[in-house]
Amino acid sequence: MAAELPAKLKPAARVAGQRQDVWSIINEAAAASPKQPIVNMGQGFFGYNPPPFIINAAKDALNRVDCNQYSPTKGRPRLKRAIADAYTPFWSHKLDPDAEVTITTGANEGMLSAFMAFIEPGDEVIIFEPFFDQYISNIEMPGGKIVCVPLAPPKDGARRTCSSAEWTVDFEKMEKAITPKTKMIVINTPHNPVGKVFSKEELQRIGDICVKNEIIILSDEVYDRLYYVPFTRIATLSPEIERLTLTVGSAGKNFYATGWRVGWLMGPPHLIKYVSAAHTRICYSSVSPLQEACAVGFEQAEEEGFWDETVRDMRGKMARFNESQDAG
Amino acid sequence: MAAELPAKLKPAARVAGQRQDVWSIINEAAAASPKQPIVNMGQGFFGYNPPPFIINAAKDALNRVDCNQYSPTKGRPRLKRAIADAYTPFWSHKLDPDAEVTITTGANEGMLSAFMAFIEPGDEVIIFEPFFDQYISNIEMPGGKIVCVPLAPPKDGARRTCSSAEWTVDFEKMEKAITPKTKMIVINTPHNPVGKVFSKEELQRIGDICVKNEIIILSDEVYDRLYYVPFTRIATLSPEIERLTLTVGSAGKNFYATGWRVGWLMGPPHLIKYVSAAHTRICYSSVSPLQEACAVGFEQAEEEGFWDETVRDMRGKMARFNESQDAG
Repeated sequence: MAAELPAKLKPAARVAGQRQDVWSIINEAAAASPKQPIVNMGQGFFGYNPPPFIINAAKDALNRVDCNQYSPTKGRPRLKRAIADAYTPFWSHKLDPDAEVTITTGANEGMLSAFMAFIEPGDEVIIFEPFFDQYISNIEMPGGKIVCVPLAPPKDGARRTCSSAEWTVDFEKMEKAITPKTKMIVINTPHNPVGKVFSKEELQRIGDICVKNEIIILSDEVYDRLYYVPFTRIATLSPEIERLTLTVGSAGKNFYATGWRVGWLMGPPHLIKYVSAAHTRICYSSVSPLQEACAVGFEQAEEEGFWDETVRDMRGKMARFNESQDAG
Repeated sequence: MAAELPAKLKPAARVAGQRQDVWSIINEAAAASPKQPIVNMGQGFFGYNPPPFIINAAKDALNRVDCNQYSPTKGRPRLKRAIADAYTPFWSHKLDPDAEVTITTGANEGMLSAFMAFIEPGDEVIIFEPFFDQYISNIEMPGGKIVCVPLAPPKDGARRTCSSAEWTVDFEKMEKAITPKTKMIVINTPHNPVGKVFSKEELQRIGDICVKNEIIILSDEVYDRLYYVPFTRIATLSPEIERLTLTVGSAGKNFYATGWRVGWLMGPPHLIKYVSAAHTRICYSSVSPLQEACAVGFEQAEEEGFWDETVRDMRGKMARFNESQDAG
């Protein structure tokens, strides 16, 4: 077979680059440097299983015919209801599981669905830099143009250990980055890789700018349950901001199951319906037995003490990590 | 919240239509006509579970940490190897699991990955009509243009029961449909909804036309194990045709698990690598524990007598269906 493809068979520009992702780069660097350990801090990848009550729910689901066949394209009703119930306490009103929640094949495909739903070629999407590296391909797939606005570390950040909260949004640069083509902005809080949790004041200011300019806000909050202090969700700040906001969640992160590919988007019906439409055209539907297990996860997490346990575990890990840094 | 979106928030053209799919249309027609039953013959949807040896493999996988976390983006090595081993007997050479097989999130996302890999806006894709309705959205997502070529029923087909084999390709129309923008053609055999199995001669002629015009062939063969006579796979007809062919398979159809979202594409490395790249940008990776279960499915299907059982079951169902038609 020919190694070179004739011009007529060439790949589309969106995949032609074969650009390395951050994982390949890190893995190769680590392999090439056995004496100087290199650790990838960017990927949320657990070294242990989901808790037994969720694993057992998955096994139970595998016994049921309806849990092995296609689910509704927008997600299993039980999971949508469980998510609406779990997140309603953070919102100012009761979330409607059918109109305000849609299930996706992981948070990544969920974000892609949002971009495929709203981005036409040439539309601009603002992201804060540094950012989770898959945003690039998610935005480029529908032909979107990435516009970066820096998150600024403190001026003396190179000389002392500083809190990620000291990384700040440069609002002047953010406002200058907005053009008539700006269709969406991506927020990520708690933030990967910096760890920053955006303050209520920062989110209010970002939200107000988006309301003024009619920009859709895609808020990636997949680390919401792993963080150990309450944090602000931009969608909950005002009805005007909520009207523009899609919030992204991940069962992979919430339940230590990154290989299950269950995520969701929450937002107002006039945005969610187009995300659902895009998801249907991308994956048709998402994995049935693991959606059912995630529904049980949400239903029973409180009584199992799982959210508290997660926070305790994460706080312990962070303490150990900081000790090892101080020691190093 | 406003019912109408301002112009600045409008959805992308690729989802704006909110076109009904064939399932919604059938379901609504059935609900509106309780006395005259309406049956959707177009969707492969099982009313029973995968066999116990595969369900048990899924439960075993759920006990393993590596089966609950991210899999490699191109698929789990064990599943790729099992697929290469299962399909090598139909090919003229040993399939390379790493270069010639890539795992996708169901066959649907697999086909989308192929179109996203090769179709630029305005490129044309030929499909034979009638066709499985999701091809439309799969082709339109990257901006492709659908060009239909009819499959012609026999002239007296309306007055007698005829074999689906009597539906024929109009080769004159097919050749006329080809333009300099024709990038891909979709074959579907065994065919949904007609049931036609393309003959070796038909596939050879289609393949020769594609070789002459350098057209990529996407061969949807998801019903391969449900059909009860040997059938021809276009990729196996010649090295020149194989060089242009991507073959689509589905664990959902093979193992009665449409809700598991495990599919794959097989083909030459120079095509597969771009399909893998597109899949990584769409779903990142596919569902881990169910990939592992499907690997066991392929490894043990022969010794469990599962493929033979499937063919026996399907032949029985077809006989019962034909009897009920004759009786009706």
